[in-house]
Amino acid sequence: MVTRFTQICSDGAARSGEFSTTHGVFETPNFMPVGTQATVKGVDSERLKELGAQIILVNTYHLWLRPGPEVVSALGGVHKFCAWQGPILSDSGGFQVFSLKDTRHLAEEGVEFKSYLDGAKYLLTPEKSIAIQEQLGVDIAMVLDECPAAGLSYDEVSRSLDLTIRWAQRSLAARKNKNMAVFGITQGGVFPELRARAAAQLSEMDFDGMAIGGVSVGEEKDKVHEVLSYHAAQLPQHKIRYLMGVGTPEDMVFAVKHGVDLFDCVIPTRAGRCGRAYVRGEQPYINLRNAKYQRDEDPLDLSCRCLACRNYSRAYISHLFRTREMLGPQLLSVHNLTHYQELMQAMRQAIRNHTFEDLYQHERQRWKL
Amino acid sequence: MVTRFTQICSDGAARSGEFSTTHGVFETPNFMPVGTQATVKGVDSERLKELGAQIILVNTYHLWLRPGPEVVSALGGVHKFCAWQGPILSDSGGFQVFSLKDTRHLAEEGVEFKSYLDGAKYLLTPEKSIAIQEQLGVDIAMVLDECPAAGLSYDEVSRSLDLTIRWAQRSLAARKNKNMAVFGITQGGVFPELRARAAAQLSEMDFDGMAIGGVSVGEEKDKVHEVLSYHAAQLPQHKIRYLMGVGTPEDMVFAVKHGVDLFDCVIPTRAGRCGRAYVRGEQPYINLRNAKYQRDEDPLDLSCRCLACRNYSRAYISHLFRTREMLGPQLLSVHNLTHYQELMQAMRQAIRNHTFEDLYQHERQRWKL
Repeated sequence: MVTRFTQICSDGAARSGEFSTTHGVFETPNFMPVGTQATVKGVDSERLKELGAQIILVNTYHLWLRPGPEVVSALGGVHKFCAWQGPILSDSGGFQVFSLKDTRHLAEEGVEFKSYLDGAKYLLTPEKSIAIQEQLGVDIAMVLDECPAAGLSYDEVSRSLDLTIRWAQRSLAARKNKNMAVFGITQGGVFPELRARAAAQLSEMDFDGMAIGGVSVGEEKDKVHEVLSYHAAQLPQHKIRYLMGVGTPEDMVFAVKHGVDLFDCVIPTRAGRCGRAYVRGEQPYINLRNAKYQRDEDPLDLSCRCLACRNYSRAYISHLFRTREMLGPQLLSVHNLTHYQELMQAMRQAIRNHTFEDLYQHERQRWKL
Repeated sequence: MVTRFTQICSDGAARSGEFSTTHGVFETPNFMPVGTQATVKGVDSERLKELGAQIILVNTYHLWLRPGPEVVSALGGVHKFCAWQGPILSDSGGFQVFSLKDTRHLAEEGVEFKSYLDGAKYLLTPEKSIAIQEQLGVDIAMVLDECPAAGLSYDEVSRSLDLTIRWAQRSLAARKNKNMAVFGITQGGVFPELRARAAAQLSEMDFDGMAIGGVSVGEEKDKVHEVLSYHAAQLPQHKIRYLMGVGTPEDMVFAVKHGVDLFDCVIPTRAGRCGRAYVRGEQPYINLRNAKYQRDEDPLDLSCRCLACRNYSRAYISHLFRTREMLGPQLLSVHNLTHYQELMQAMRQAIRNHTFEDLYQHERQRWKL
C-alpha cells in the first residue's frame, strides 16, 4: 500500500493531516461537496475552487445509468468531464441501490435493480462497482457494502456485516488501477461489538482509508453521536477516517473531536436551495424565506467573503426566494459551501493551535448540543 | 437637456457611439441583459460584468409589486440592491400591464390593473411610472406608452398613438431628478405615416433618447424588418435609438444596419434555459438536448472564452440538461449573453473599420435572411 495519509498534528482525539492522490493533496479535516450527477448543484467548478473546496464527491449509481462510465471515459475521465482537476471520490452506488427498497434484489453475488430511467435490469456487484469507478477515473473509490436499515436486530445486522466484509475482500481483489485509492466501509449499526468487529476485520485488509457507514440512515441523533464517540477510535490511527453522508456543522464538529477526518453531505446545497443559510454568531442558521429579512441590508454573514456576502444583502436574497429566482439557490449554495469549508479550515487551525476544545465548546453552545 | 449620446463613427446608416449616465458610460451598439426581478436569471452580477455587459434592464412592473420601490429605495437603490454598479435602464411597466388583457382597464389618466400576487388594484399613470423609476434609482427611465396589439386598423393605431404622445408629455413633465435620463417611445404599428408622425412629435420633446416600441408584439418578421428599414432614419440623428424587446442576433444585425443603437431581450437567457446555445460557424445555434451532442467533446463554440466554453464540453452540458441540473441553464445563459456581447463588440468594431456590410452579409448568410 502506498502511504497516502499523513497525520500532521493532533489535539486530543482530533487530528489534522494530508491525503495524497494523483490529482493532488487535500488537507484534513475536510468536507466534500456532493456532485451527484458530476455537478455540485448550482455551482460551477471555478466557483467551487474559489470557495475553497479541495475534493469533491460524485455518485457512481447516477453516472453509471447516465451518461454511463464508458461515455465519461471516452470523454477523458470524470475530472475533465466536470472540469474539476482536484481529487474526486466516488461512492460505490450501493447506497442508492439499497434505497430502492421495492425493486432491488439482494444476493451473495450482488444486488440487482431496475433502472428508474428505462426499467432495464442492472446487477451491481463489488467487482462491478470497482470497475465502474476505475472507468470513471476517480482518485478514491468506495467498496460496495450493505447498509442495513435502522432498527434491525443484532443478529440481522451481524449477518449483514458478514456480507459487507466478504464484499470488501472481493472489492480489494477487483482493483486493477493501483493509483486509485480504495476505502473500506465499516457497518454494524449501533452495536459496539459489531462496530468493533467491522473495524478489526477491515483493518486487516489493505485499504487506503476507512469509512464509517450506516450512521446517516435514519437513527436518532443521540444514537449517531454514541456510535461516533467510540467507533472512530476503533479504526487504525494511520489511515484516514471518512464519515459518510454526514452532516450538519454540529455533527461534523462532534465527529472531528472524536477523530474523524473527512465528510460529505448534501446539506449545504440542499438547505441552500430551500432558503437556509448557515452563519456565524449566536444563531447557527437563518432562513431567508422568513419575512423579517425582507428589509435587512446586512449580508448573510458579516464575516464571510463569499460571492453572496461580498455582493448582496439578506433583503435581496430574500427577494430572490420570494420571486423563485434561481440565483437565490445558487447564492445560498455557494455561501453554505463556503461556510462549511471555513469551518474545516477553522478546525484544522484549532487542532494545530491545540484550541480545538474551545472551538468545540463554542459550536456546542451555538447548537445547544 | 444634458448631452448624453455621442456618435463616434458611422458606416452607412450603422453608427457607433457612447452614452453617459451617472453610473458610467456604455458603448453602442449595445445589448442589455434583462433582469426582470432585478436579477438576470441564473447569472450573478460578477459574472455579468465578466461577460462584458455594460448596462442591464430591470422591470418596473415586477419591482413595483415586489419588493416595492420604497423597499428598494430604503436599501440604497436598485444598483446596490442587485449589486450592479453600471448603468441600469428600467421599462415603464406598461408592457406587462397591457399584456393583462382581461384584468386591466385603460383610460386617459392611465391603466388600472389587479396585482397577480394579491388581487389588489393598482393604477399605472405616466407620472406614477416615472415616480417609481426615480424611486428605484435607475439611470434611464422609459415613458409609459400604449402598445397596441398587432393587427389593429390605421384609425385604431392612430388614436392609440395620440394617447401615447399625450402620455409622453406628461411623463417628461413628471421627472423630478434631472440626472435620470428619460427616453420617449414611438408607436404607430406598421403604418409608415404613423411612425413618421410619432417620430416627429416625440422629437420635439426634450427626451434623452428615443425608443422604438411595438415591433415585438406578434407581427411577422417581414413586417418588423419593413418598419425597421425606414423608421430608425425618421428619428433624430443626435439621440440614441433603442429598439425595445428585440431580439435575435439576425434582428439586431438588421436593426444596426438601419441605425439602431441599443437592444434588450430575454432570448439569450430564455433560450439558454431551454438548451439552445448561439454559436459562430455555419449554424447560428445548436440545441444541447439533441442526442448528437452526448459524446461531443468540443466546447459549445471553439472561439468563445466564456465560463462554459473554457471549462466544459458539449457532452457535459448535454448531460446537465438530460439530468435537469440547474448548472445547464446557468452555463448556457452565461454563454448566450457572452455571444450577444461579442456580437455587439464585433458590430462596433466593424462600424469603426467601415466593414459593417461584410459583417451583415456574413450574418445574413448564416441566418438565410
